[in-house]
Amino acid sequence: MIRYSIGVDLGGTNYRAAAIDEHGKILDRVAGSTSSAAGREAIVAEMVSAINSLRGSRAGDELAGIGVALPGFIMMETGVVLSSPNIPPFENFRARDVLTEELGAPVILENDANAAALGEKWMGAGRDVNDLVLLTLGTGIGGGIIADGKVMHGYLGMAAELGHLTIDPSGNPCGCGNTGCLEKHASATAISTMARHLSLGDDLTSEDVYKLAVGGNPHARRIFEYMGCALGIGLAAYIQIFNFPLYLLSGGVLAAWDLFAPAMFDEIRKRSFTFRNSDTRVEKALLGSDAGLYGAAYLPYQAR
Amino acid sequence: MIRYSIGVDLGGTNYRAAAIDEHGKILDRVAGSTSSAAGREAIVAEMVSAINSLRGSRAGDELAGIGVALPGFIMMETGVVLSSPNIPPFENFRARDVLTEELGAPVILENDANAAALGEKWMGAGRDVNDLVLLTLGTGIGGGIIADGKVMHGYLGMAAELGHLTIDPSGNPCGCGNTGCLEKHASATAISTMARHLSLGDDLTSEDVYKLAVGGNPHARRIFEYMGCALGIGLAAYIQIFNFPLYLLSGGVLAAWDLFAPAMFDEIRKRSFTFRNSDTRVEKALLGSDAGLYGAAYLPYQAR
Repeated sequence: MIRYSIGVDLGGTNYRAAAIDEHGKILDRVAGSTSSAAGREAIVAEMVSAINSLRGSRAGDELAGIGVALPGFIMMETGVVLSSPNIPPFENFRARDVLTEELGAPVILENDANAAALGEKWMGAGRDVNDLVLLTLGTGIGGGIIADGKVMHGYLGMAAELGHLTIDPSGNPCGCGNTGCLEKHASATAISTMARHLSLGDDLTSEDVYKLAVGGNPHARRIFEYMGCALGIGLAAYIQIFNFPLYLLSGGVLAAWDLFAPAMFDEIRKRSFTFRNSDTRVEKALLGSDAGLYGAAYLPYQAR
Repeated sequence: MIRYSIGVDLGGTNYRAAAIDEHGKILDRVAGSTSSAAGREAIVAEMVSAINSLRGSRAGDELAGIGVALPGFIMMETGVVLSSPNIPPFENFRARDVLTEELGAPVILENDANAAALGEKWMGAGRDVNDLVLLTLGTGIGGGIIADGKVMHGYLGMAAELGHLTIDPSGNPCGCGNTGCLEKHASATAISTMARHLSLGDDLTSEDVYKLAVGGNPHARRIFEYMGCALGIGLAAYIQIFNFPLYLLSGGVLAAWDLFAPAMFDEIRKRSFTFRNSDTRVEKALLGSDAGLYGAAYLPYQAR
């Protein structure tokens, strides 16, 4: 008999789910699409069906529990999703209790960025540490903090808003009301915006800018240097505050590591004496888009 | 029979020590001066004598242990003081073991800023919470982070370097090698420096500048507004990262609260949506210069 848990990573348009054993081995996995237009019941039914199909092929094995990662703000004590811009039907939804009832098995919810950090700690680049910070560089910048092996939630579950740290008080305006947020200077979106301001093109993706930079375009190269500086200011702050052994970067922009990392490390060295006087590591995350899936599956094991 | 612990707050020129019961009641206290010039043995002898005099008047009571707060970087696992600019004779000194041997009772060391944060959590403004950040505004800016009731140390004991957070990447140069550290914009020293730059006077203390501001001097008032803005940028960062319920300020500059707090809160509101969407509190610490003494005395109780 194998003991396994089921992890689900629910996004705004897709989901993936997997049965994973206690050693982090993926036993089975499924994936599918979620349509917000179809409404709350349809999404729940699709998830229940996916989870039950994974359970069906493990008759005789022991289910430790189910973890669900989703984008949004979750009240951890009540299991209610308070807001979720990417899955509007889930707003003000007591998702944990409804899923627990439908599945007849305990369900634990977690914010997707937090789950990704936990996944990297369990089976990714953070396997050898108990404390780490993960920054996910995408459209925005999300983050998760793992302290003493566990997600740091804060008293309301709002901790780790790491993309909305001021790295330049007179910097770019952010939708959150601030100016100079890290995510307005170092996300994929920020790269596209800088390309437009430098007249490289109006509709370039960060990948387009990356290709220009690799091709030698000096403006495109400067964009990645600037983005590395911004990241370095933010990372130096986290290093000075936490003195954790490991800080991880993930997301599509990671492909441009060689272009932004030198400027990033220069900035960290300058701004963090803790970094200069220790063996603190800043590294690439390893699990890519599966990090949240692993983190979700780890939740039931951790809850024991 | 009363159960008590002894807390010691050791500074560069003075120390204070107290016997404190489990409810935080100070039973006896002593104070004295420490002379770095006299050397390590003289300081140790003075502390041992002070601690033994406190024990002598509690014959029949039960000593839970001894906590010692001191300025410097302590290797928590070995109890060795690695560096201490204010108490040079203690550098590379295995203070914990030597004191434990001399006293015949268990001694726990803690950095003084961390101990102050712990003291505020135990008997001060943080009595009703388990998570808080304390910023001490003095010559520099020190800090302590209490997470789940305990000091957050980081993997090397270097966490909570809260005064060396970049609040303006092109700001004032700092001795740590960075530019724009919070403590170069919001400490007592920063206030004096700004007064000199604004030609208010060459040797004004932050208290002199405070008196000018209270007297209506517009430049002096502007200095406190600027300092409040800088503090607000830093506090907004901590609030976005931790989502703790409470952030405390202490130190002599606190007397100027009414002058800097409005600008500080404006900046926090602008830069932290977590603050705007919660009942997060930013308040004055309550224990003044006794915070470290309380925190030191709490260490043995917490270690049980």
